[in-house]
Amino acid sequence: MYRAPVSEIAHALKSVAGLKEGLDKGLFGDLSEDLVDAILEEAGRFATDRIAPLHVPGDRQGARHADGAVTMPDGYADLYRDWAAGGWNGLAADPEFGGQGLPISLAMAVAEMWNSGSMGFGLVATLTAGAVEALEAHASDEMKAKYLPKMVSGEWTGTMNLTEPQAGSDVGALKARAEPAGDGTYRIFGQKIFITYGEHDMTDNIVHLVLARLPGAPAGTKGISLFLVPKFLVNDDGSLGPRNDVHCHSIEHKLGIHASPTCTMIYGDGKFGDEPGAVGWLVGEENRGLACMFTMMNNARLAVGIEGVAVAEAASQKALAYANERRQGRAPGWTGEGMSPIVLHPDVRRDLLTMTSLTRAARAICLACAHAIDMSRATQGDEARFWHERASLLTPVAKAFSTDIGSQVASIGVQVHGGMGFIEETGAALYMRDARIAQIYEGTNGIQAIDLVTRKLPQSDGACVSAYFDELDGVIGALSASNEPAFGQSAGRLKEAVADLRAATDALGAMMKAGDMARALSGATPYLRLFGLAAGGVYLARAALADAGNGERASLCRFFAENLAGETAALRRTVEAGAESLAAAGEFLVA
Amino acid sequence: MYRAPVSEIAHALKSVAGLKEGLDKGLFGDLSEDLVDAILEEAGRFATDRIAPLHVPGDRQGARHADGAVTMPDGYADLYRDWAAGGWNGLAADPEFGGQGLPISLAMAVAEMWNSGSMGFGLVATLTAGAVEALEAHASDEMKAKYLPKMVSGEWTGTMNLTEPQAGSDVGALKARAEPAGDGTYRIFGQKIFITYGEHDMTDNIVHLVLARLPGAPAGTKGISLFLVPKFLVNDDGSLGPRNDVHCHSIEHKLGIHASPTCTMIYGDGKFGDEPGAVGWLVGEENRGLACMFTMMNNARLAVGIEGVAVAEAASQKALAYANERRQGRAPGWTGEGMSPIVLHPDVRRDLLTMTSLTRAARAICLACAHAIDMSRATQGDEARFWHERASLLTPVAKAFSTDIGSQVASIGVQVHGGMGFIEETGAALYMRDARIAQIYEGTNGIQAIDLVTRKLPQSDGACVSAYFDELDGVIGALSASNEPAFGQSAGRLKEAVADLRAATDALGAMMKAGDMARALSGATPYLRLFGLAAGGVYLARAALADAGNGERASLCRFFAENLAGETAALRRTVEAGAESLAAAGEFLVA
Repeated sequence: MYRAPVSEIAHALKSVAGLKEGLDKGLFGDLSEDLVDAILEEAGRFATDRIAPLHVPGDRQGARHADGAVTMPDGYADLYRDWAAGGWNGLAADPEFGGQGLPISLAMAVAEMWNSGSMGFGLVATLTAGAVEALEAHASDEMKAKYLPKMVSGEWTGTMNLTEPQAGSDVGALKARAEPAGDGTYRIFGQKIFITYGEHDMTDNIVHLVLARLPGAPAGTKGISLFLVPKFLVNDDGSLGPRNDVHCHSIEHKLGIHASPTCTMIYGDGKFGDEPGAVGWLVGEENRGLACMFTMMNNARLAVGIEGVAVAEAASQKALAYANERRQGRAPGWTGEGMSPIVLHPDVRRDLLTMTSLTRAARAICLACAHAIDMSRATQGDEARFWHERASLLTPVAKAFSTDIGSQVASIGVQVHGGMGFIEETGAALYMRDARIAQIYEGTNGIQAIDLVTRKLPQSDGACVSAYFDELDGVIGALSASNEPAFGQSAGRLKEAVADLRAATDALGAMMKAGDMARALSGATPYLRLFGLAAGGVYLARAALADAGNGERASLCRFFAENLAGETAALRRTVEAGAESLAAAGEFLVA
Repeated sequence: MYRAPVSEIAHALKSVAGLKEGLDKGLFGDLSEDLVDAILEEAGRFATDRIAPLHVPGDRQGARHADGAVTMPDGYADLYRDWAAGGWNGLAADPEFGGQGLPISLAMAVAEMWNSGSMGFGLVATLTAGAVEALEAHASDEMKAKYLPKMVSGEWTGTMNLTEPQAGSDVGALKARAEPAGDGTYRIFGQKIFITYGEHDMTDNIVHLVLARLPGAPAGTKGISLFLVPKFLVNDDGSLGPRNDVHCHSIEHKLGIHASPTCTMIYGDGKFGDEPGAVGWLVGEENRGLACMFTMMNNARLAVGIEGVAVAEAASQKALAYANERRQGRAPGWTGEGMSPIVLHPDVRRDLLTMTSLTRAARAICLACAHAIDMSRATQGDEARFWHERASLLTPVAKAFSTDIGSQVASIGVQVHGGMGFIEETGAALYMRDARIAQIYEGTNGIQAIDLVTRKLPQSDGACVSAYFDELDGVIGALSASNEPAFGQSAGRLKEAVADLRAATDALGAMMKAGDMARALSGATPYLRLFGLAAGGVYLARAALADAGNGERASLCRFFAENLAGETAALRRTVEAGAESLAAAGEFLVA
């Protein structure tokens, strides 16, 4: 069973991602290291004691749909109520609306624990937090006052409604309509699919944020507006009014996250109300809905990256426990009686160390990204811009690299369990099933790679990424200077990895400058993996350097550098020279 | 829906694996290329029209257990009956018992199609074929006459009973007992788990091959004997007698292959018969059971490799079809109306080409292994020994590399489908669920890697592997000499890959000569992957060279060489120098 790795997360947050430095500078108000530790400790207890035990049963029973209502698995409503009562929902939200105004990085660190406990449960918090953020940034004061306090407290949950059958990665293709009612409200019509927690029985109301088109709006992404559409209309005194004309048509039968209802939502078909049309309120400006949605999507992408870390952590713990308990064969050097624990077999050790080191590398990338967001808010001017760009740069890497390794680690976890791994009761396969979606939603990992290459690398004409690489090299310099034998060849190997990253970055830059987008896009996915490996390896070094004398951290950095980081050379070559063959062979794929 | 890739498989079998050369030399009797083609064509029709349509429904309904009986999903009994009536079960079996005596390579080529259609269905054939082989090699003439005709025709199916809760990879730990009854028969007692098709309702009888210990047998693997234990005893006239004291206690709730019942079998608890004890007959010599079982296990390992290829092929087809149909965004260079098919996006092309090229590489390795088995049987003396060693060398690679890429390809297939990939109705996730077990059973892929390094590389003091590498280099020489521009840098890149393979092989050899087994075992898994990538890339070249003027094959070889083969350099470094850091970090894993 999962136990929240509180001290490991605290170390990653404070000493690797950089929160300690921010605290020392007084950038985060009254927040102290001790308080950070106490919050992490308390969250860890809740995740370990309350959430994790409901993971397997929640998967088995799943969310169930009947007549437009969705019933959550047994125990989830109580779990959610207690979780919200603990104040966890508003950790990073604005104190004006009841939030605690704590750093995003702390909220992400805590979110990891919810998702390790049960990703299907953790999702509801992610969605509500995203909706809260979008409303904080773009809603009118009146809307904020009406909705935010209850969404921040967790009394109501939030959703994001983008996808339609013909509009997935291509959001611009959406067709949902919004018609002005003449009284300042709108009537929303259309169908949205894949709506996470679009319907459930844990709260009295659900606040949907819905993208739709106004009459005469331009085609594509420039004609999309954002609307707030509550499940129940809200009276001026805050009490609930009549049911709005929106309902859940069905929920999906999915590979994983069975506890999380994935809904097809119907807006405005006349099922509820006097005449068809779901009542909605415009959030932000007309036709600027995508920009508003991106406010929440950026942090949602980071939150999905955290899901990858979360599942990887839980899967690693489970595999490690099994490997210490299960006995088979005699490992080299085993002198005990009978069979040795499989953790002593070199092959199993490779699996376990791959799991642990990838998990920690991804966690560091995600928390460094979160910290950059916090710094962009805590600073001003050029410094704020620097941190904003840093966060933008790391977001696609945090999302895609972490979720890729989430699935990779969960699959290795199944392997460590041998035949038992394939049996659902064991629970190892469940992590693999849950993790798979995180590579897909909130922008597929292919979309993240394209975002990284085409939008993030060019930031400030390359100065953003260049400064980041200098920072990575700085850590490697310190590693080199440490002369600690436990690091083995880490410095040399990581230096090569970052050199590969720089070279691949330059190659992509040259392709884009030459206008050869097809060539640059061909290398996007291998480039993102290369970025994640190089950065992740350096963060493992930073984690070890910040905790001198901790042999485990140094040896894990070394394992990663000497066994996993070498892939960067091949990825670099693929980025630099793989596009031509991809284009040539690709022609034969077209039906 | 899956369509059997008949001409692609025929090409791989005849021109890549080497069957054509054997046919030209007259090594396979009357068998002609035309007949091979006709058999593949007919099998393809059955797999496409009859098996594939039952895949998704078979998964949904699954095999069900009640009171010791297992009910197969709707349609499976009819499917099996028609399949057996087509003569497919005895394709490679001895004509003396009704088989067709065709090459193993042809049987494996056909098995790919069954497993692409439905892996859960294909398994029953694999298990029966394995049992037939073990009986052909080790049973008495009387037992052969009594059981083989009906097992070859498919009237009865067969099973392999090795695993017990405490004895998985470590077969030597098994505890099932066999007591001589004094009349030449034995009484079997014990519990076996993970028994594929241990019980079902498609045939009247099931023939279990069971590993158990005789009284006073040595501990470990040298005290294991093999027994034949039929579900129903068989009278001398071939009719069925009383029920034997063996039954299915339960079936597993698994991640995938739901149609295939995975049974816990209880032997000798007195549920059936006058007194407890399942009646069994010794197969082969006392205490030599494991050697007998290995007769079937080697080919079973190859057959499991084929399962990896099969699922990869089906998943690739599904993803390619979806990518041609689904439209999102505008790919670079797209001049059509509206959104472009996603197959035009470079990132999706990379996914699809990775899927296709890995699938073909793995298929070639498996069929080359099967062909080596055929050659070892069709030749004599040193030549037979050469081919036997070649087959032994390639078996672990065929099993592990193919099943690793099976899961990898199936997971990429989910990604190509975007959000739809996570929805079970789509069927893409089902391939991922099915494929996962193949990395585990018939010896985990970690066990395969250990077998490759410690038992196969040393064959004939390294001459076996060395001759194989020379053969790979020969193909690269021909590739170099072809001067075909469509190959791009393939020759140079594959040359590097084989050089990496040779260097890693030498490094492992030196470690083992120095007696440092822990170090050699630390590199086993990366070494096997390196072997598969290098060999697979060369086979793609051979496929293209054998079909000059086919631009698709040349371009696919090039894509693989320029985009995927580069991983070998990192794998080589890991093999050569990764063990020390693995050992150091591994110490921290022990609880």
